[in-house]
Order: sequence, then C-alpha cells, then structure tokens
Amino acid sequence: MMFNDLNVRVSAKASIGKNVRIGDNTVVFDNVVIEDNATIAHNCVIGEPQNEYYSNPVYENPLTVVGSNSLIRSHTIIYAGNKLGENVSIGHRVTLRENNLIGHHTVIGTLSDIQGNVAIGNYCRLHSYVHISQFSKICNFVFIFPNVVLTNDPYPPSYDLKGGTIGDYTIVAAHSIILSGIEVGENCLVGANSVIKKNVPDYSLVMGNPAELVMDIRKYVILGKGKLYPWMYRFSKGMPWEKIGYEAWLGEKDMADEQ
Amino acid sequence: MMFNDLNVRVSAKASIGKNVRIGDNTVVFDNVVIEDNATIAHNCVIGEPQNEYYSNPVYENPLTVVGSNSLIRSHTIIYAGNKLGENVSIGHRVTLRENNLIGHHTVIGTLSDIQGNVAIGNYCRLHSYVHISQFSKICNFVFIFPNVVLTNDPYPPSYDLKGGTIGDYTIVAAHSIILSGIEVGENCLVGANSVIKKNVPDYSLVMGNPAELVMDIRKYVILGKGKLYPWMYRFSKGMPWEKIGYEAWLGEKDMADEQ
Amino acid sequence: MMFNDLNVRVSAKASIGKNVRIGDNTVVFDNVVIEDNATIAHNCVIGEPQNEYYSNPVYENPLTVVGSNSLIRSHTIIYAGNKLGENVSIGHRVTLRENNLIGHHTVIGTLSDIQGNVAIGNYCRLHSYVHISQFSKICNFVFIFPNVVLTNDPYPPSYDLKGGTIGDYTIVAAHSIILSGIEVGENCLVGANSVIKKNVPDYSLVMGNPAELVMDIRKYVILGKGKLYPWMYRFSKGMPWEKIGYEAWLGEKDMADEQ
Repeated sequence: MMFNDLNVRVSAKASIGKNVRIGDNTVVFDNVVIEDNATIAHNCVIGEPQNEYYSNPVYENPLTVVGSNSLIRSHTIIYAGNKLGENVSIGHRVTLRENNLIGHHTVIGTLSDIQGNVAIGNYCRLHSYVHISQFSKICNFVFIFPNVVLTNDPYPPSYDLKGGTIGDYTIVAAHSIILSGIEVGENCLVGANSVIKKNVPDYSLVMGNPAELVMDIRKYVILGKGKLYPWMYRFSKGMPWEKIGYEAWLGEKDMADEQ
Repeated sequence: MMFNDLNVRVSAKASIGKNVRIGDNTVVFDNVVIEDNATIAHNCVIGEPQNEYYSNPVYENPLTVVGSNSLIRSHTIIYAGNKLGENVSIGHRVTLRENNLIGHHTVIGTLSDIQGNVAIGNYCRLHSYVHISQFSKICNFVFIFPNVVLTNDPYPPSYDLKGGTIGDYTIVAAHSIILSGIEVGENCLVGANSVIKKNVPDYSLVMGNPAELVMDIRKYVILGKGKLYPWMYRFSKGMPWEKIGYEAWLGEKDMADEQ
Repeated sequence: MMFNDLNVRVSAKASIGKNVRIGDNTVVFDNVVIEDNATIAHNCVIGEPQNEYYSNPVYENPLTVVGSNSLIRSHTIIYAGNKLGENVSIGHRVTLRENNLIGHHTVIGTLSDIQGNVAIGNYCRLHSYVHISQFSKICNFVFIFPNVVLTNDPYPPSYDLKGGTIGDYTIVAAHSIILSGIEVGENCLVGANSVIKKNVPDYSLVMGNPAELVMDIRKYVILGKGKLYPWMYRFSKGMPWEKIGYEAWLGEKDMADEQ
C-alpha cells in the first residue's frame, strides 16, 4: 500500500533514475536528482525550498541529490541544496536543512536535525534526535548516539558561528555536547552525558562535565573482554571491511591509495 | 473536520472494530486489528511495514493490534508487530518501531521513539522525547520524563545489545540515561540528568553522573510536606486505585491474586 | 509547488486575512484567525482541537490566532487556544499544545514542544527540541538552546504542577534543565548541561549539576574579546535595536514609557 502513486507530486524539473520508488503523499521539488534504485518512502519532502522562496518571486531551487540505492524513510524533509551519497539511509521525520553534504553508506536516525552547511562523511551512524549545528564536520566511520548536540556559537548570541569537528572512527555516547569550534580527534570515545569544552586528542577516552581525559582508549580493558578499542577489529556490520576484516581492508586501501 | 474519511486508506486485510474513528490521511496496513472504540487521529500510519518490505516481494505484514478505547494522536507511526493494550494513549509524532508490547492504560508522549522489541507494562507514563532502545523492559506504573534515554550497547559499536530494566513504580526524571543492561529496581527515584551506570536497588533515590545513592526513598522528607515516597499513597490520577485508594486496591488485588 | 490549494481544508468558521498563503495538505480548524500576510506552510494543522473534542459532541473550538506576517513552517501542529503575535516564526514539526501565548517576533525551532498554558514573550529564540512544560513563563529576548527542558512537577508524580520562569535577556545553553517553580533572573547565562535547582539572581553565570554561581556575568571576560555580557551591546540581529543600537533603543523606549 506504500507505492501507489497516490498524491505523489514530482516537479517536471526533477530527474528521477531507474527503479526509483516514491511513496504516497511525497513531494519532489524542482532541481532534485534521485539516482537509480533509490526508495523515497511516503510523506517525504525532497528539495524543500530554502528561505528565500517565501519572498523572492524568481527564486530558483538549488540542486539536490539523493544518491543511488538510498532509502529515505517516511516523513523526512530534505531541503534544497543537500547532496546525499550512495546507499544512504535516513530515518523517519529527519530534517536536513540546506546544503549539507552526506557521504556514502551513512545512516541518520529518526528525528535527527542536521541544521545545514554540515559535512558528514562515509559510513557514519547517527542515532535518533542527533542535532548537528551549522558548519560542523563529521568525518568517516563516526558513531553518534541519541540526543547528542554539536553547538556552534562560542558566546551566544554571537555572529562568530563555528562548528565542531569529529574525527574518523570516533564514538560519541548519548546526551553529550560538543561545544562550538571544538575538535574531537580520531578513534576517541566520548562517554555519555559529557560536555566537551576543549579539543580531544586522538585515541582519548573522555567523560564528564567538563569532560576530562580518562585514559588512552588503547589501554582501556573491559573485564572478561580485554581491549575493545579501536573497535574496527571486532565490529564490521555495514562497514566496508565486513567481508574481509579491517586489517585486510586497510591493506587493500593502502595499496589503492599508493596507485 | 477530523473524521471525514478524507484520504483515509484501510487495507482490506485489516480488522476494524465497532465505533472506531480514523482521521483524515491515515493509512492502516495489512493485518492490523483496531479494537472497539479506539480513535486513530489524522495523518497516522498503523502497521508501517518492517524493513523486509522494501526488498522481499512476498513480504507479509506481522499482526499489529491497537487495543480497545485507545487514542492514537496525529502523525504517529506504529510499525507492524506492535501489540498495544486497552486504553492506551499515544502522543503526536510518536514512533513505535517493530514488535513492541505495550500494556493497558499506558501513555506515551509526543515525539517519543520506542525502538522495537521493547516491553512496556501497564499504567506507565512516558513523557515527550523519551528514547527506549531495543530489548529494554519497563515494568508497571513507571514514570519517565522528557529526554530520558535507555541505551543498549555496553561498548559501542558491538553485537552484544542488551536493554535495561526499570521496575514497578519507579520514576526517572528528565534527561537521565540508563546504560545498557542496567536494572533499576522498584520504587526508585532517579534525579534529573543522572547517568545510571550500575544496578539500583529497590527504594533508592539516586542522582548524579555517575549516579550515586543519596538515600532510601522512604526516608526522603520534603520540607513542609513530609514523606512523599512511595508516591502511590498520595497520587492516583489515572491509576487503578483512583477511586478507592492504593491500600484498598492492593488489598483487593491480593485477594484476587490468591484466588 | 507549495501553494497550490491542493488538499487544503479551511473551516468556514475560520478567518483568513489578506495575502495569507496556506500550503498543501494543511488543515485550518474552526475559530482560527490568520492575520494578514501570514504564511502557513504545507502539512500543518492550525487549531487542532483540544482533548474534549474526542468525547464532547457539542465541543466548540477556542479562538486561535496566528499574527500578521508570521511564518509557520511545515508539519507544525498548533492547538486551539494559542495566540501568536506578529512576525512569529515557527520551525518544522513544532507542537504547540493548547492555550499558549507567544509574543511578537519570537522564533520557535524545529521539533520543539510547548506543552500548553505557557507564556513566551517577544523576541525570544527557542532552538530545536526545546521542551517547555505547562505553566512556565519565558519573558522577552530570551535565548534557549537545543534540548533544554523546563519541568513543572516538584516531586513527581504530584498534583502541584508549577512552571519555571526565565527573565529578560537570559540565555540557557543546550541540554540544561530548569526544575519546577524555579525563577531564573534577567541577564543570566546558564551553561550547557546545567541542572537549575534553586533560583538564579539577575546577572548570574551559572553551570553544573546542581548549577552553582560561577560569577557575575558582567565580570566575565573572554580572552581576546573582553566583556561580552550583557550581550545586547554587541548583538542585534533580528532585535528591535538592530538599526539604532541597544542604548539608543533603550533611550527611545524609556521616553515612550514615560509618555
């Protein structure tokens, strides 16, 4: 009952690939490109016009791309100017404000709010209610858990908006806050409910308000489990090394990079 | 203007009881049972197909039940496989992922996100933006306030997902986090913004990050008010002891249990 | 493609001003007044009936007002009994429960949840996922950042609901909680992730759980920036002193007040 072309409206100026499914009540605005084999579920808005639309009679909608094989779940709003890679998965009622770049194989959970002009890399996993403020940068293979907030105003209210950065392979647990302009390095683990007020070096386990360094994550031993971080050696679900293991994948990647 | 049969779509394979009202723009999928006197407001999706629907051409939707006299407010998404008891009340834009069991007389507030395979008992009150991760268990008469998160991954990302448990009559104040696998006992009070990292015995008042035991809740005296916990002796709104008082109800219940 | 009168339903008992635009799939219930030049985007519900509607056959919808030049973004639900001033801007998927008063030029962000019987003044900025419980009072020029919660139950569950108050010019950073009945004064700055358990005097910088006074905000010096608070002397975007400066505006206001 989901793909009946009931009340679906697709602009004549949109480009729809092969085998694309579009759910009932979904609207696709001008200058949207939906690549092959993507699924847009019901009640979505793809290419929601930017603010200027309300006042400028000759407004033209910026290019918006949903990559091939992506799945956009129901009730999601994707503003004009977003570029989503291939195999992206977006949860229910997500809001992607204007001009975000979202990498391949990245997942964004239910009710998350990506505020615009945000760069998110490949293979990231954002859980529910994640709020990323404008001008933030999330690198690759980053996990962000529910209710995490990245802020961008160092002394609110100000004109000096500056987003934070989260490095590759880093995990940010639920309810943590990363303050404006802060750089969290690669391979870090930020404990639940932390407030990150200063830069975090690579391989740090940090927690608390304000967050303090607990130890090098490579020395973190869990009783009966041993050393679990970096996590890529023990977890591969949905990752590019899923079939061959992280070391083998790294080796292949290094060889490819050298060529 | 709410129940006009405008743009309502009900699968021929759904079962709709007596005096059921279904709001405009609502969709009811296959194998949904809506029991007598239930009200489904506008723009809801009842029986949203599970993931497999997108790829399996012979997918069959699991049974989904909305109990009698329940009220599902507008814009709510209830996935296939949920079983809701009688007199359940669900707020706006709630997301119930697949296969939750939700007891009688339970209330789930606006924008809450119940992630699937969760058991919630009778007479619970979940407020707004409550996030319950998969495999969690909420017993009966539990109050959970806004932005509380129950997590289920002990050392993310891992394959060892394990939900938490919250015992009967326990109250969890706003913004608290209960970590994976933790058991919070009965009759506890978790203060606002707490992070629960270890099991909490019955009758505990706990708070902080990490949460520590403050005192036995039965010894907690509020100036000018006296002892207020356990709360069942002073609060009965919407509870089964509303008309007779908690002690009398307990007595009746004990007699019934003995038979 | 947004204002096509497609599936728009406006009650014959609603009053629609001049140059009002109403987006597709939006419903306007009885006794709603939409003043001149307001824009209601698509998929909104304006004047959502109060609870009684479901059971009272002679229910009459209370007066609901959207002020002139206001912009209500898509998927927002505004209950009956709300009164919104002029030039109000409401984000996507906001829920305004019944009987709130919202002042002129106030902005409420995506997914915020204003629980009803709340007073919000003029020129306030509420960011995303802000949860304001019933009976709270937000004065003028207040900034509230994502995931802030104002609670209203001093010893839950109780019948003694009492909202908090936030004074003029105060800023509450992300993830903070203001407990029931607390008064936060004017010109305060509440740090991220704070829990406010006691009243906060004017001009306080507070933070922590429980929040403690750090210093008088007027003495707060930021390296290389000097004294930045009160903020009105350095920030004017969207404020009534935008063109003339705060001091000049204050002077004009004082003169006007004297007459």
